[in-house]
Amino acid sequence: MRSAKTGPVLAKLQGLAKGVVDEIFTLKNPSVAVPTRALSNVKFNEKKSIIELGNEKQKRYFFNVGQARKFMQTFLIASACKTLMGQRKTTSIRDLYYMTKHSMGDSNQNTFDEQEESDPVIEDLEVIVNALREELNLFASNRGALVGNITMVDSGDTINCRRLGSGGWSIPSIVEEDVVKIKDSAAKFILMVEKDAVWRRLNEDKFWSQYNCILIHGQGMAPRGVRRLLHRLVSELKIPLYVFVDNDPWGFYIYSVIKQGSINLAYESMRMAVPSAKFIGLSSFDREKYSLPANVTIKLDDTDRNRAKQILEYPWFQKKDWQRELHHMLKSDVKLELEALSHKGISFVSEKYLPEKLKNKEWLD
Amino acid sequence: MRSAKTGPVLAKLQGLAKGVVDEIFTLKNPSVAVPTRALSNVKFNEKKSIIELGNEKQKRYFFNVGQARKFMQTFLIASACKTLMGQRKTTSIRDLYYMTKHSMGDSNQNTFDEQEESDPVIEDLEVIVNALREELNLFASNRGALVGNITMVDSGDTINCRRLGSGGWSIPSIVEEDVVKIKDSAAKFILMVEKDAVWRRLNEDKFWSQYNCILIHGQGMAPRGVRRLLHRLVSELKIPLYVFVDNDPWGFYIYSVIKQGSINLAYESMRMAVPSAKFIGLSSFDREKYSLPANVTIKLDDTDRNRAKQILEYPWFQKKDWQRELHHMLKSDVKLELEALSHKGISFVSEKYLPEKLKNKEWLD
Repeated sequence: MRSAKTGPVLAKLQGLAKGVVDEIFTLKNPSVAVPTRALSNVKFNEKKSIIELGNEKQKRYFFNVGQARKFMQTFLIASACKTLMGQRKTTSIRDLYYMTKHSMGDSNQNTFDEQEESDPVIEDLEVIVNALREELNLFASNRGALVGNITMVDSGDTINCRRLGSGGWSIPSIVEEDVVKIKDSAAKFILMVEKDAVWRRLNEDKFWSQYNCILIHGQGMAPRGVRRLLHRLVSELKIPLYVFVDNDPWGFYIYSVIKQGSINLAYESMRMAVPSAKFIGLSSFDREKYSLPANVTIKLDDTDRNRAKQILEYPWFQKKDWQRELHHMLKSDVKLELEALSHKGISFVSEKYLPEKLKNKEWLD
Repeated sequence: MRSAKTGPVLAKLQGLAKGVVDEIFTLKNPSVAVPTRALSNVKFNEKKSIIELGNEKQKRYFFNVGQARKFMQTFLIASACKTLMGQRKTTSIRDLYYMTKHSMGDSNQNTFDEQEESDPVIEDLEVIVNALREELNLFASNRGALVGNITMVDSGDTINCRRLGSGGWSIPSIVEEDVVKIKDSAAKFILMVEKDAVWRRLNEDKFWSQYNCILIHGQGMAPRGVRRLLHRLVSELKIPLYVFVDNDPWGFYIYSVIKQGSINLAYESMRMAVPSAKFIGLSSFDREKYSLPANVTIKLDDTDRNRAKQILEYPWFQKKDWQRELHHMLKSDVKLELEALSHKGISFVSEKYLPEKLKNKEWLD
């Protein structure tokens, strides 16, 4: 259950409805202005180092054959979110689809035919009222876990993340302040690991205790809850974040989404991105540096090569070190998984690799 | 880190090696007997109500061109597991692949070329020494979470599962007794939910507190850690387990794997299956019973229909009620997701559906 603090967002939803009611009373065509969520309206803000949505907007009208359905759906979703917030309940976007799906009058027309129709309307609503879906009481699938030198409060329960055994705290999808609070922490940094298997190695070796940090994984691409939590941890605790991913274009991309946000969800960067995040590995140069044998590397395929070339072009990968990193990957034509380090010994990652990288400040910005 | 108690498994690994050494000293062709993991050697034990491996075995010889490589791999994996157990460390099967992969002598031959080669050898070793891979200190990906009226001990940390907020305890992949202990519980039953979104609805509504139960999800097909934990909870606490899955052939199959094990991993049934598990929903008859509208149902496709027909034939689905259930699904030609219940109200599942089913003992065995 979510507590109060939903006031400002609720007010925005009500403002949205009031605007339309006013238009109706003044005999105008009811409309809603939706910020454009397309590449054309996305830019990289170099100063803030995040991907941002521009100012372009499109009007969605009620009296318009091509827009009436979307107009109706927008308010249907907004109304369901208002109900959720009123009841102080949260739900999944799939649930919301089922909650709002019904036939209209005696017709065979459904409000939504597929979830593919309701999901973009949720994203529209997020940009219209400038709120994260989590603030609209909607959650995504939750993945990821946390252990370390920190105490959290989750839905009123105090959770000592130093005493959570092998499993850790399962990071909820909604980590807004009214649900999740950071109680205290003496950690010096955060280590975000792409893979849960490597996270478990580090947890089992009590890496977080020895190096006084917070250890998080996102089971692949960091889900929204993990990104939002990283953002909060870094801004509230004012400690650095290091990201530890596979040495392949997908790992680099996971890092970049954490750091400056994604193109698709540019409107969330402000509250999700961590521009100060550092990439601690695996670097394409680690293979030589730690003399990893050729048989633990994996040859790049065409998809990898194309993705690496795409990434080379992104404005946020133009720093000299990153260009060098990407060119080296393409030149050596191989990638490396985090698990490849185990070839040097099961605890090589926690006893040598990471301590050395941290000590020598070997990371990319 | 895992504590002592690895003795019996370690002894079995040593016995395996000693057998081969003895054969060498008596100038025999070194061999190992591997129980056959194939459909031909799997049977449904009606009395115990679990799927079991039969007694067929195949010998794997060292002096045999077709078997020498597999023979070598078997002992390579066994040796790595012994090392892990000696160091009291656990690792993933992907890690184990990287740990044991190397070139042989000056040749270009690798011990393993792909993980697809090492995974089956791990399964071989499990049946050879009659131990779960978790007892060999290997873990799978961990998914699933738990909240409820229970206190667990995980790696020495006491975890009060009544005070874990919205995220819950992330269930580790290895839940053997030396890592995870059940400290105390006053719960009357266990509810296992297929989907984490529905689990979160139930957790948010404090269903587990109101109905005094343990609430678990497995994020789809229950992973090994969750199955093993369910087995332990049911046998140690002596309380019933109810399984709550989508109304489709895949949901039915998730239930059946929890209940009597799977064909592929029949050798684990003994320590993973829960023959007393009950199916609490969604039933194909729920659509009419709760007058769910047609537009929240999903039409079966050919894959669904074929899978349902396959399941109809399984010996463990021959009970009258199950045949009726499956025939009704095929006749109505639709399936239902758990989220479809939200059409009746966001907390319909926790306030009406489940309480009624439990009160009226409406489940299938």
